[in-house]
Amino acid sequence: MTARAESSSGRRGRRTRRVEVAKVGVIEQLPWTQPVYTDPPTEPLDEDGLEAVHDAAMRIVEEIGIDFLHEDARRVLKEAGCEVQSDSPTVRMDRAFVMEQVEKAPEYITLEPRNPDHTLIFGGAYAAFGQVASPPNVSDLDGGRRIGNRKDYQNPLFDMLTLTDKLIHAYSLGKERMVDAIEMVRIAADLDDEAFEAAPRMFTNINSSSPLKHDWPMLDGAMRLAKRNQLVIVTPFTLSGAMAPVTLAGALAQQTAECLAALALLQVVRPGAPVAYGSFTSNVDMKSGAPAFGTPEYVRATQISGQLARRYKLPWRASNANATNCADAQATWESAASLWACSTAQANIVYHAAGWLEGGLCASFEKFVIDCEMLQQLAYYHRPVGVTEADLAVDAIRDVGPTGHFLGSAHTQERYKTAFYSPFLSDWSNFENWEEGGSLQTPQRANQIVKQVLEQYQPPPMAPATLEALTEFVERRRAEGGAPTDF
Amino acid sequence: MTARAESSSGRRGRRTRRVEVAKVGVIEQLPWTQPVYTDPPTEPLDEDGLEAVHDAAMRIVEEIGIDFLHEDARRVLKEAGCEVQSDSPTVRMDRAFVMEQVEKAPEYITLEPRNPDHTLIFGGAYAAFGQVASPPNVSDLDGGRRIGNRKDYQNPLFDMLTLTDKLIHAYSLGKERMVDAIEMVRIAADLDDEAFEAAPRMFTNINSSSPLKHDWPMLDGAMRLAKRNQLVIVTPFTLSGAMAPVTLAGALAQQTAECLAALALLQVVRPGAPVAYGSFTSNVDMKSGAPAFGTPEYVRATQISGQLARRYKLPWRASNANATNCADAQATWESAASLWACSTAQANIVYHAAGWLEGGLCASFEKFVIDCEMLQQLAYYHRPVGVTEADLAVDAIRDVGPTGHFLGSAHTQERYKTAFYSPFLSDWSNFENWEEGGSLQTPQRANQIVKQVLEQYQPPPMAPATLEALTEFVERRRAEGGAPTDF
Repeated sequence: MTARAESSSGRRGRRTRRVEVAKVGVIEQLPWTQPVYTDPPTEPLDEDGLEAVHDAAMRIVEEIGIDFLHEDARRVLKEAGCEVQSDSPTVRMDRAFVMEQVEKAPEYITLEPRNPDHTLIFGGAYAAFGQVASPPNVSDLDGGRRIGNRKDYQNPLFDMLTLTDKLIHAYSLGKERMVDAIEMVRIAADLDDEAFEAAPRMFTNINSSSPLKHDWPMLDGAMRLAKRNQLVIVTPFTLSGAMAPVTLAGALAQQTAECLAALALLQVVRPGAPVAYGSFTSNVDMKSGAPAFGTPEYVRATQISGQLARRYKLPWRASNANATNCADAQATWESAASLWACSTAQANIVYHAAGWLEGGLCASFEKFVIDCEMLQQLAYYHRPVGVTEADLAVDAIRDVGPTGHFLGSAHTQERYKTAFYSPFLSDWSNFENWEEGGSLQTPQRANQIVKQVLEQYQPPPMAPATLEALTEFVERRRAEGGAPTDF
Repeated sequence: MTARAESSSGRRGRRTRRVEVAKVGVIEQLPWTQPVYTDPPTEPLDEDGLEAVHDAAMRIVEEIGIDFLHEDARRVLKEAGCEVQSDSPTVRMDRAFVMEQVEKAPEYITLEPRNPDHTLIFGGAYAAFGQVASPPNVSDLDGGRRIGNRKDYQNPLFDMLTLTDKLIHAYSLGKERMVDAIEMVRIAADLDDEAFEAAPRMFTNINSSSPLKHDWPMLDGAMRLAKRNQLVIVTPFTLSGAMAPVTLAGALAQQTAECLAALALLQVVRPGAPVAYGSFTSNVDMKSGAPAFGTPEYVRATQISGQLARRYKLPWRASNANATNCADAQATWESAASLWACSTAQANIVYHAAGWLEGGLCASFEKFVIDCEMLQQLAYYHRPVGVTEADLAVDAIRDVGPTGHFLGSAHTQERYKTAFYSPFLSDWSNFENWEEGGSLQTPQRANQIVKQVLEQYQPPPMAPATLEALTEFVERRRAEGGAPTDF
């Protein structure tokens, strides 16, 4: 296993002092650390089954081919020996070529955001959780559902770079947006060009336009980011029954073909570039065609995706997804199933880990808090169970005896503060007290927490000169007309 | 593995014709079958860790002892060689004795209720789901929370035996109640005494009065049932931090000691009697002392209980538990965690599998429906994923190509009806349609299903002579004063 990189070289002198992440007083948050899955992964397919899916994926890239709707991408692949016709977007590549490229990709990636204390390792049994991304709508109990806006999301990259010092995602939506994003991340991290490229410090996620197609804006952004040694996750949009076969094995073969074809391109663009296998295979409701998430099929598809990613020695991504319209029981069982899928599959990044509703069409403030509670429990769950002589507690049992109680025993008193996970959102009071307190359901309690957290929020420190440079850059680019947004 | 027993011998002639379980039209129910876990179990402890817990349990029964508040039980154990003092309820037994008794217990148990089509296997990777039991309160969205009553539960054993033909549980609350229960199950199944005893046809669950104590009513009922070759599950009430050590390993050692001591008694009473290891270890909220369920600690305790039960080659029981006051997000994430615990631990019977709220103080109609949806998804999840050439769908992918869609493809059309799990409670409509339909949240939809199911309910068939015999028995026992209920 690659050890946590300690590369803070290349940082210039005006860097501000590192401080601990601001303690959020409202909720009992576990200390910052990257969770590690301790259970062995659940692997639904045996070796033959896994090889059958791999072989099907290879037949797809060899015999059927993948459309690359980007001239430069096709040129690069043709020069690398792939089969490309001048009058067709389709690229066919043989399996030896694909596997040769995939082998160049790193098995572990160390991602260094502007605060190196928030460095993440991406690979193996490491987990990382990313918040909901992309919904056009936002909702909370106070304002209801509305079109997304800057106040609700504090969304433009400038806000992301100033309001958090954690890892940043940039959209692959054309040249200008990606070039600007790279420049802003570099400025915010206070690095020169060479130092920026020395390590992955940001990432993008591109979706294929399934079936069998990679669009121009995604490919363009991905190639630009890969050239700068930044992480690209390739996530086919393979909803089984709609954009992919109705059989899970078929959808996963297609997912793998679409993903590895793009990863091969990126390895040709920059050998060794940090890339990741993205899994989003779920099913649709065959009665309506509506997408479904957190289903039994989603769990199995995610687990098999993990098997495939490990077969290719690639870090990989899955999601905490649901297809529900409000933060109720259905949203929770779908999210719980998605998170258990990620956990049993050992997903390295759980994307949309908090806040997603409506199959990704809405970011919910209350669901965000609910998901954070579930995520923290998941992280805690993976701590090992102690079996020392003191843990076995035979002497404490003897001391308490058949008529005693453990609450007051010395064994309990020594340990009670840290013995158990302490949820910040659960209400474990009895019915009478709960009723007296207003019978608040979970989303109502989450709504209160949202307000308290926002009220107490302190942005992470940024050196004044850095903030000034970032502001200047944004103002100049605005004056120049900004980046096109019509994708 | 013991094959499904086909023992229908001993049944008398007036038995009615077997019919298929009444199809409930409201919900899409999977065909009756017993689910089997297909994933290997998650085992948090290594072999040394597991042996350490076992050894601690053995030290407890050997050195500290377990209190048996039942004179006959102590007499039986003393005659079997255990250390019993005349002035103390405490019984000490050495580990060789305990393990010798436990080895007599069957690894698999076939349970035959009055309808043999509903026979269950208890052991190995087989799963069975039992509904909520014991809450003093009941609730639904229409009537709110109220004290339990016969109309809501149709609770007395007579109703259970006439309204369902599935496996019946009888409470171990004293002599009369258990003797009556055995007699009623025998009459309802239309069996003579010898035929009744030929196979397990009912069960009881007894809880130790932790720490380290078995009470009279539970022991009395358990011994009566064991003598008649019926299943006894022994479930210590080991809430970590209250009735058991604050450390999970300690609580599990105590759970094991309390459980195996009672199982040893039952094996002395009737060697080979069907018995099961019961797990209920969870933690309390250390701020309030309130019980908590579905926590990370609960999941780990359940998984380790599975390891212990397999070590002893015993069928075993866990629960779908939560500590929430209404069927909201918290109730769902706690239940989802409990059910994943049961699944990853391979619990043979998931008790309280549907309908439990408030740490067992309330049976909720809506939660019952929500849990059934989660249970059906769990059962479906354990079906294997196909990887045949047709499943891999390379030809279908070729036919659809980069500009097509799979919804209309022949490959999809041939499979769409059964390709995916179809939930009966989920609403996957888009936000606009959902809003137009009244923005119904999950409990409201569940409430509608409750009403429809009850409206369409048809009791399973029972021969008129059997019903008459059962009615006569109940009327006679009522006239005689019934069974005492002051436990």
